[in-house]
Amino acid sequence: MSASSVIPSTVNTDLQKERDGASFNSEEFAAWWAGGAEQLKFKRGIKEYMYKDVDFAALNQVDYMSHEDMCEFAVKNSINVAKKLRQLQAERNPGGNEYWPTLYDSPELWGLHKVGNPFTVMFVMVIHALKDQCTPEQYEEFGKRVERFEVSVAYAQTELGHGTYLRGLETRADYDRETDEFVLNTPTITAYKWWPGGLGQCSNYSIVMAQLYIDGELKGPHLFYVQVREEDTHEPRPGVHIGEIGKKMGFLAVNNGFLGMKNVRIPRTRMLMRHAKVNRDGTYVKSPADALTYFAMVRTRCIIARNMSLILAVAATIGTRYSAVRRQSPIDPKLPEPQILDHVTQQLKVIPEIAASLAYRNACDYLLELFDATSRDKDLGKYERLPELHSLSCALKVLCSSDASAGIERLRLACGGHGYLTSANLGNIYVNATAACTYEGENTVLLLQIGRFLMKSWRAAQSGAPLAPSVSYFAEVQRNPEFGVWTGSWENLVKAMQFAAANKTRIAFNNLAKRLANGQSEEVAANQTGIELTQAAELHGRAFVFHSFLTEVTGAKSKKRSSALNRVLEQLLELYLVNVTLNNMNNILRVVDLTDEDLNKLQTRLETALTKLRPDAVAIVDGFDFADEQLNSTLGSYDGNAYERIFDAAMNAPLNQKSVPKSFHEHLGPFMKSNL
Amino acid sequence: MSASSVIPSTVNTDLQKERDGASFNSEEFAAWWAGGAEQLKFKRGIKEYMYKDVDFAALNQVDYMSHEDMCEFAVKNSINVAKKLRQLQAERNPGGNEYWPTLYDSPELWGLHKVGNPFTVMFVMVIHALKDQCTPEQYEEFGKRVERFEVSVAYAQTELGHGTYLRGLETRADYDRETDEFVLNTPTITAYKWWPGGLGQCSNYSIVMAQLYIDGELKGPHLFYVQVREEDTHEPRPGVHIGEIGKKMGFLAVNNGFLGMKNVRIPRTRMLMRHAKVNRDGTYVKSPADALTYFAMVRTRCIIARNMSLILAVAATIGTRYSAVRRQSPIDPKLPEPQILDHVTQQLKVIPEIAASLAYRNACDYLLELFDATSRDKDLGKYERLPELHSLSCALKVLCSSDASAGIERLRLACGGHGYLTSANLGNIYVNATAACTYEGENTVLLLQIGRFLMKSWRAAQSGAPLAPSVSYFAEVQRNPEFGVWTGSWENLVKAMQFAAANKTRIAFNNLAKRLANGQSEEVAANQTGIELTQAAELHGRAFVFHSFLTEVTGAKSKKRSSALNRVLEQLLELYLVNVTLNNMNNILRVVDLTDEDLNKLQTRLETALTKLRPDAVAIVDGFDFADEQLNSTLGSYDGNAYERIFDAAMNAPLNQKSVPKSFHEHLGPFMKSNL
Repeated sequence: MSASSVIPSTVNTDLQKERDGASFNSEEFAAWWAGGAEQLKFKRGIKEYMYKDVDFAALNQVDYMSHEDMCEFAVKNSINVAKKLRQLQAERNPGGNEYWPTLYDSPELWGLHKVGNPFTVMFVMVIHALKDQCTPEQYEEFGKRVERFEVSVAYAQTELGHGTYLRGLETRADYDRETDEFVLNTPTITAYKWWPGGLGQCSNYSIVMAQLYIDGELKGPHLFYVQVREEDTHEPRPGVHIGEIGKKMGFLAVNNGFLGMKNVRIPRTRMLMRHAKVNRDGTYVKSPADALTYFAMVRTRCIIARNMSLILAVAATIGTRYSAVRRQSPIDPKLPEPQILDHVTQQLKVIPEIAASLAYRNACDYLLELFDATSRDKDLGKYERLPELHSLSCALKVLCSSDASAGIERLRLACGGHGYLTSANLGNIYVNATAACTYEGENTVLLLQIGRFLMKSWRAAQSGAPLAPSVSYFAEVQRNPEFGVWTGSWENLVKAMQFAAANKTRIAFNNLAKRLANGQSEEVAANQTGIELTQAAELHGRAFVFHSFLTEVTGAKSKKRSSALNRVLEQLLELYLVNVTLNNMNNILRVVDLTDEDLNKLQTRLETALTKLRPDAVAIVDGFDFADEQLNSTLGSYDGNAYERIFDAAMNAPLNQKSVPKSFHEHLGPFMKSNL
Repeated sequence: MSASSVIPSTVNTDLQKERDGASFNSEEFAAWWAGGAEQLKFKRGIKEYMYKDVDFAALNQVDYMSHEDMCEFAVKNSINVAKKLRQLQAERNPGGNEYWPTLYDSPELWGLHKVGNPFTVMFVMVIHALKDQCTPEQYEEFGKRVERFEVSVAYAQTELGHGTYLRGLETRADYDRETDEFVLNTPTITAYKWWPGGLGQCSNYSIVMAQLYIDGELKGPHLFYVQVREEDTHEPRPGVHIGEIGKKMGFLAVNNGFLGMKNVRIPRTRMLMRHAKVNRDGTYVKSPADALTYFAMVRTRCIIARNMSLILAVAATIGTRYSAVRRQSPIDPKLPEPQILDHVTQQLKVIPEIAASLAYRNACDYLLELFDATSRDKDLGKYERLPELHSLSCALKVLCSSDASAGIERLRLACGGHGYLTSANLGNIYVNATAACTYEGENTVLLLQIGRFLMKSWRAAQSGAPLAPSVSYFAEVQRNPEFGVWTGSWENLVKAMQFAAANKTRIAFNNLAKRLANGQSEEVAANQTGIELTQAAELHGRAFVFHSFLTEVTGAKSKKRSSALNRVLEQLLELYLVNVTLNNMNNILRVVDLTDEDLNKLQTRLETALTKLRPDAVAIVDGFDFADEQLNSTLGSYDGNAYERIFDAAMNAPLNQKSVPKSFHEHLGPFMKSNL
């Protein structure tokens, strides 16, 4: 943020007091959170380099631009970021890729892509899809150009009328044996490709998912590499109807596009043929396995889930710091208005989100370990753990995106009216997070897929077949359906969540069986049982998060941390487990006999955990180590000068640059005068 | 929406089939919902008149404007609406006020104020505040000018650093006996008035809440009428620092402003002196009662609550219609993709929101009846029911705003990716709704106030003192703390919610007592018990909504409706009660002993209710009778041509008006070329 007369150079005294009073060392937390002191240093170095000469006061003016100007700005800006990151790579490790393109859309650089990056999809997805789907020759031709950023490539799959259900796509690619070409067509309005990021005005090529037809015979959806605009003039190619889909709630300038094609011809060799193939004579060779396509999607979901946990941490940082700076509503009328973080109701809005972001980031790290292990297995031709990995990646994608969205909104509302200001950045964070509930697998659809996995696993458990580790508790619950003694220990809370998940799975399984017995088809029965299947899936995901958080905090890794840091992590674990348990009590009470006294004790534990964490809250979010540029929030800056920053941001608003607006002279003035 | 080649003039066949298959008459529903056939006709007449020559394709281009252009547009547009509405008044009933200004911001005209109306506050609030707070002479001078719209007046209370707690305001008005003037000052940055709608560039006067000082002695917050800009030039008056606070998530063009004052002098007679007074000699006369100020706020909250129920109905209309035209994800793989409304999980996202909007609108109507009755009492000097009215208006404001916000988001997410489009209008509806969680009494603050009322009432019940009707169930629960037999009847569900509310009230009351006994001050104890107080308040509100919905559907009024309509309303009641009961089961299980079988039965009832309502869902939302212009949604129009409208809206996006954007020539093109 630019220097301004009203922003002091000192740290807000309330915030400083919080830091001085913390029970642990934020730097140790930061190193642990970053994955080690080396990682922390690496990340800080990147941020320092990338943010050092950015004028954020100017950057934030983009909020006031017209849609068109904003989109044009994002192109320029994203290219500048790419250049700078390549420069960093060249300076520090020429020929490597740990900076460029790896970090192009990393959380470290979130602050630079204020209204979105139209080239994100190209580096997060297109390049991986090309690697997975191209023959080596094709990758050499298409992929290498992407790596060098000679072309701009989108990934067009979703259509205006078709999303989740791939086989429902209407775009078609007919093989023309005469010319050895595919002819691509968009037969209806609903067949228009719709939504691909960067496709609109920023791409000149696109991967296109289309139904392959050979001699009029449908072979199912396949990927094609299609040039959509001329490289030199950027004019749409003949037969190509392309543009942006219009404004959205968020991702304002990522240039989501549409694509219609009328007899667009491409050489046969532009079908991506690593797996399935079409030969010159029109013979079709089926893909030997779908596993690889599938696997790339799993990876994307893991990354989304982890990013969602981090975006929640960003919001929690803003909400916590503001809650320490804002004073409002006396508790004791004889004393001055307290920091709002002293209100217990405020603590309940803020501190559990800190704990949740931690629990989720941790669960995602466990998931990524599983991903790496499964990935190694896969390379050896072992696919056993794939269903579990798929199911867990879905579960965390769903929980992280939906809980992060809800948590960000709670945090925003916890900041009162000022949370509604664009300069607070919480609204922007929210619209980014909530989009993840829909993209890359709509959450309900994913929950139903997990539900299917749970049904299979439940049946396997019944027949004594081996179970994936994450559902091994099914066997235990089936062996011993009684929960046993309620102790309220952390292990006991994890067990309760597992029992709740298993119980809902059992209910869904039995209802499904009943419906099948009544003569319903499997599909209709599954649809009818949809509510319970999704509930079971959610609880199963929660049980996984519980278990992995408990393992992280109390397991072997704790020995590498100071006792002060461990104490804080234990309090966060306690808060998380108790709070989520209370919020899911409707399901837990169905499997555990809790007395009124047990429940009151849990409530007391919740309040105690909040009280204990209260003095450390600011130091914990400091430990997340987000730079002010990443937060980009008037409410959340490290120095805590929230009011001055809100004030300063307002003074920079365009309408305030003149004393009287045009509309007074043209409309309001004459109108009021006419009423005299 | 303007005529366009791709939008058919026919109704989508899926939607038409829904209408043809409905079990009741939408027109009868519409008349009931509108409050009678006359009211329905009146509302339709207004909409026809006000919308007839509006070009919505042009109006929607405002989404693409810069912030400044948007704000300028809103001024022009709002003045045009005012002119037209005055014209309507003049044509139909000159001298009356049932059109102008009554309907200026009514739900019927929501479609016209797309980005907000900077003059809303003047007619919804300022004019009422002037009526309540001015002496007759003052009203003649200030109020009448507002009525004639000769001036533009804001209401400035909230400050940058101060909201909820009125006594914490810093703006001061010192009486200067020498000149018979008040001298207004903004002593610090945090004392700046911040947020008032229309204040920024649109007002030339403002009511200002300031701490009154006489001879340096504080008399507390009072209202002053302050000229902030010159009437002829609109330049800020000497000593006035005024402007807008910058961009926000929503209410984009309502011109929320800031105001700082440095020795701004106003005549003594510009303090609003209907109640408190300052005489020429500086003697201060206290207000005899605060009841009136208080009462105006209660009225505003009732209106907010009711508007929130309607805005939820708008979103439910959009979500339901789209769910009937969107086809996605096969249930039976042998059949084509079904309407998504056939997926049970989709039904659970959509239909309960229809029921909720109905339940809430209905509860608000009961509340408004109570308001009228209390208002009549008040005029007779009877204030007994005021605390109850205050408490209920807070409860409904909280529940309607928070549940409507959450419901709108569920509906938006139920529309998948397309729900994220600005042209779907659900994002805009959401940001408007969620703001109501904060303005006019932050929801948590209100819940705590209700909690206080519940504590008093619980104590009164213990001592056998008379209770307000809405908490009379406390006495019953205290007399007979056992819930008794669970029958699952509607009455029984209402009773269960009352027991849950009473139980949480009891827990909060006991914990409060315990804390007081441990020596905590009342204030500290209340803060410590905050979580349970807010939970009790929420449950109490739910019990009221349950009760009033049951009364409406099964009570005497049902005799005036056809049995077909009653059947649908009963199904909506069933769905609402069962769904909300299940969602609050964690609290209900603490007071009612439900077996696993009872719970399974409730789940079956939920699913059965969804199945029964499924075929009537479209007809019900048709019965809400929102015009397409009110919905202003590509997904929700009456004709159901969602895809064509999405397509059409995209084609109108500014970036699509040229084939190649400027940024290609200036940035993307040269950059890619340099990488070749």
